[in-house]
Amino acid sequence: MFWQGHKKEDYRTVKTLFLSLIICLLGGSVMSASITTKEGKPVDMGETITLLKPDLNSTAGLMQALSKRQSDREYTSEPLTLEQVSEILWAAAGVNRDNGKRTAPSALALYPITVYAVFADGIYKYEPDSHKLTLAARGDHRDASAMQDFAFVAPLNLLFIADFDKYKAHAQISAEMRKMLCGQDAACMAENVCLYAAGNGLKNVVRGSVKWDKVYDVLKLDTNRYCGVLAQTIGK
Amino acid sequence: MFWQGHKKEDYRTVKTLFLSLIICLLGGSVMSASITTKEGKPVDMGETITLLKPDLNSTAGLMQALSKRQSDREYTSEPLTLEQVSEILWAAAGVNRDNGKRTAPSALALYPITVYAVFADGIYKYEPDSHKLTLAARGDHRDASAMQDFAFVAPLNLLFIADFDKYKAHAQISAEMRKMLCGQDAACMAENVCLYAAGNGLKNVVRGSVKWDKVYDVLKLDTNRYCGVLAQTIGK
Repeated sequence: MFWQGHKKEDYRTVKTLFLSLIICLLGGSVMSASITTKEGKPVDMGETITLLKPDLNSTAGLMQALSKRQSDREYTSEPLTLEQVSEILWAAAGVNRDNGKRTAPSALALYPITVYAVFADGIYKYEPDSHKLTLAARGDHRDASAMQDFAFVAPLNLLFIADFDKYKAHAQISAEMRKMLCGQDAACMAENVCLYAAGNGLKNVVRGSVKWDKVYDVLKLDTNRYCGVLAQTIGK
Repeated sequence: MFWQGHKKEDYRTVKTLFLSLIICLLGGSVMSASITTKEGKPVDMGETITLLKPDLNSTAGLMQALSKRQSDREYTSEPLTLEQVSEILWAAAGVNRDNGKRTAPSALALYPITVYAVFADGIYKYEPDSHKLTLAARGDHRDASAMQDFAFVAPLNLLFIADFDKYKAHAQISAEMRKMLCGQDAACMAENVCLYAAGNGLKNVVRGSVKWDKVYDVLKLDTNRYCGVLAQTIGK
């Protein structure tokens, strides 16, 4: 047997190695968490993630954000905090007034764009009215969310997906124009995230390249009704 | 004769009224100026308007701007200051880095969108590299810049016009996709202005309705090459 004839020192060495392995694995699990608390603890990626209220008293300056706005294509896997994820989604599609209207404008105030947040643990749908994330698909689908390698590493990718049913009462708007308007709506939302990232020391890039067919498949979206418009990678 | 037989008091009253009229007319001319200094004096609307550097140390907060972002459709004719006009144009299309890249992202970094600033005195083209406005058409063309009455009153309307020649080296991108990309580029630029307005106590609205044929005519733009994409009204 392996243990036979070994000294107490050997046992202590193995015990130390074993403990190191446990610590390393625990540490690793924190690093690979989809979202962490400010203190670095993993946030439970359950069916629903209740997001935090945005800090409207943040000292991040608007002009500084505009001056630092840029696109980045190199990311680490370091997770974002719940504070950051909450504010990113609020910046993109959050309700900012009592009448339910949002941080980014939408043609005819139809708000046809839903934001999906793609984490290593799953894809979540952002619900603006309740400011929550609800699980849409379990598992790591970052590969479907992009064509570029950096997006498979980054902790967060956003997918901006249009629901053309929102135009039902506007038959005069052509299919091409609907797509154009949805593209513009999504771009305004993404630009808010660009500035949030620039103002808060995060990296981001707005992207057009997505494996949309895979996304529709994973999210079980009817392509007669839904259409992917834009994507964005955010991280450190 | 009117003056015959009138007392000195009457003369003084008429003199006061006359001076009041002069002051009123002068005041009126300031109020109808396209741009003023901080002190309210009209800025010379010559062939070129040198814009001021943006104040990157402004205390306007990013999260406050996001929380106040909204669309407004009622405007006074009160002019914007040169500081505000300068920062609005920089927010939309300004260079924010040594490599010439800008405050808003552009697909493939082609920057196909030119911003035209429509004032009561004329339409000016924004030149990002020199941060200047150059006169494109003398006169009040606000009527061409919109379909809605409020835009004819507001001190500033922006026109976002695409130059499809910027895609010459990208023949694989379809005409429809070019238009889509230009729409998204313009929307990102407009969203920066939305947040600038919200963060600085100004009103704004992003608009799709423009008398583009009139605009092309006034600006002498070849419609095989140029295409109007979006517009925006800014004021108080």
